[in-house]
Amino acid sequence: MRQLNVDLGDRSYPIYIGKSLLSNPQYLLPHIHGKQVCIVSNNTVAPLHLDQIKNSLGGLNVDQVILPDGEQFKNLATLETIFDHLLGQRHNRTTTLIALGGGVIGDMTGFAAACYQRGVNFIQVPTTLLAMVDSSVGGKTGVNHPLGKNMIGAFYQPQAVLADTLTLETLPQRELSAGLAEVIKYGLICDYPFFEWLEKNIEKLMQRDTDTLAYAIEISCQCKAKVVSADEREGGIRAILNLGHTFGHAIETAQGYGNWLHGEAVAAGMVMAADLSMRNGKISKEDLERIKQLLTRASLPIAPPSDMTPDDFLRLMGVDKKVLDGRLRLVLLDAMGVATVTSDIDQQKLLKTFSACRN
Amino acid sequence: MRQLNVDLGDRSYPIYIGKSLLSNPQYLLPHIHGKQVCIVSNNTVAPLHLDQIKNSLGGLNVDQVILPDGEQFKNLATLETIFDHLLGQRHNRTTTLIALGGGVIGDMTGFAAACYQRGVNFIQVPTTLLAMVDSSVGGKTGVNHPLGKNMIGAFYQPQAVLADTLTLETLPQRELSAGLAEVIKYGLICDYPFFEWLEKNIEKLMQRDTDTLAYAIEISCQCKAKVVSADEREGGIRAILNLGHTFGHAIETAQGYGNWLHGEAVAAGMVMAADLSMRNGKISKEDLERIKQLLTRASLPIAPPSDMTPDDFLRLMGVDKKVLDGRLRLVLLDAMGVATVTSDIDQQKLLKTFSACRN
Repeated sequence: MRQLNVDLGDRSYPIYIGKSLLSNPQYLLPHIHGKQVCIVSNNTVAPLHLDQIKNSLGGLNVDQVILPDGEQFKNLATLETIFDHLLGQRHNRTTTLIALGGGVIGDMTGFAAACYQRGVNFIQVPTTLLAMVDSSVGGKTGVNHPLGKNMIGAFYQPQAVLADTLTLETLPQRELSAGLAEVIKYGLICDYPFFEWLEKNIEKLMQRDTDTLAYAIEISCQCKAKVVSADEREGGIRAILNLGHTFGHAIETAQGYGNWLHGEAVAAGMVMAADLSMRNGKISKEDLERIKQLLTRASLPIAPPSDMTPDDFLRLMGVDKKVLDGRLRLVLLDAMGVATVTSDIDQQKLLKTFSACRN
Repeated sequence: MRQLNVDLGDRSYPIYIGKSLLSNPQYLLPHIHGKQVCIVSNNTVAPLHLDQIKNSLGGLNVDQVILPDGEQFKNLATLETIFDHLLGQRHNRTTTLIALGGGVIGDMTGFAAACYQRGVNFIQVPTTLLAMVDSSVGGKTGVNHPLGKNMIGAFYQPQAVLADTLTLETLPQRELSAGLAEVIKYGLICDYPFFEWLEKNIEKLMQRDTDTLAYAIEISCQCKAKVVSADEREGGIRAILNLGHTFGHAIETAQGYGNWLHGEAVAAGMVMAADLSMRNGKISKEDLERIKQLLTRASLPIAPPSDMTPDDFLRLMGVDKKVLDGRLRLVLLDAMGVATVTSDIDQQKLLKTFSACRN
């Protein structure tokens, strides 16, 4: 079992990474302070793992809310069903919510915990690689609005994160790849040696070698934890975690959410950010090729949909919430393993990136 | 103009108290950091004060959401209409929400600000005495759920509070009295000299003498700010602010929200808490009489509805969120001007209080 700590003063918490942690009460129990527990999951994940958790929580009052699976249910209406359940079952302020599932479940459960009686404890049990290395760490919680993703939410930290690699064994291959996009992102934004390690180990990760996965998750979480500790509420440096995301959101919006997985859109978006960084003289053509190659070996797209025009991108990026007072800000690479946030964007170079990256 | 500070580290903020502050840009402008402002108000208050605020915010992009007036609209559905407006009008993360109204508007606007894009700035402009001395200070925000009041919310602090005593001139007398219930509460829980001052000045307050009101608001906010600074998230001492509230909530629930004003229910609840404190030997019979008399002079009820039985109270207090793991906790007086939270409740004495306080 690997353990690391997210250092946030009195909101610090541990991340446990390893195989079969779910069925071992020693990881969950110390983080449950009352007698009530509500597990929030969806109808895909619950049949696979709900009983395991319930068995390891003997002696507590445990119930569950099972939501329909899918990003289209990440909204205020679904959130309300969680509140209805909690109040109907008389959960009090000492209750603990456990998020069992991917990013959608984690984001919604965390937000429900943030709001229920103005804040109750919660534990993240991510069951996708993407959730393990990204959404379960850092305290961003929330739901979507018809006019924008994650527009309603809170910064709210869990008591603990349990990343059980056993849950990855049932993960569809396409979702594993989507998770690897974020793993590769960490190599690019803050750990070049890790990028090199990924170049050597990407096939083992694609084959779900347990120890290799656990190491990649640990280093990814370490990187994210470091950035989040420095900037919990995204006032500055935390934005580097969004490498590829502004382009990626434009792709997701254009295609309708759900057609491209988030990780796939981020992969193509990272290539676009890297391409622009190359045009700014920060990384070499060879570096750009290495990035494309690594993503390709992870079965990820390296270009946006061919029907998206530069105008589509500009329009869609104009409504992105990362636009501060109307100025476009992007995360770009200063070097391999070093990212920066800049609003100093050369529009000509940006347009060249758009055409270079078209399929 | 009177000014005091709520001391919460990097979440500290000023409270300005005085006449005609709304029409003076110097109080609002320094607390608005972007170019966008959204004023949230209701259809009772907006016609009276909206233009005043808008006039003092020249040069900014100001729009408004006008909600229907009433506690029955303090719910997730109304909250969603605020989000719809903000996203429809493209408010970004640098926007500022201004809550113009009583406690319902303040609680909802604060919660909307806490959640919109995971947190934007907001300013409280309370227009009722109750909101000025209670809900606008301390960062409790939220909405009701059909199964409980304020069950969904956040601790979220404003950038500033503007208590303009001019807005009290149009306040219905019954609401002025309801606000005075909380003012009297501060005398009881943390400032005995203030209680004595109230005994001397209650008629002037009922007649809305501006300077007398401003002083009472200042001392009330000072007391609340002191308690909140010591315990922002209600882990302990902050609970003393709930003197009379557990009994009061039971009354409100039994009568259906809105039939008794919150302050009225709290007034009757404070008498019950004081009665039990007297039975515990902490205050004298004469003190209890003084409390009843002061509340009566403020046109407040000093007994619960005559049709409420002890069983009604016990049942209704059993679902109160202040029950920790099933134990009843009450705020009682240790002396005049000193409150304490205790779960050491003598049930026989409690039953005697119920029968003594029946109309």
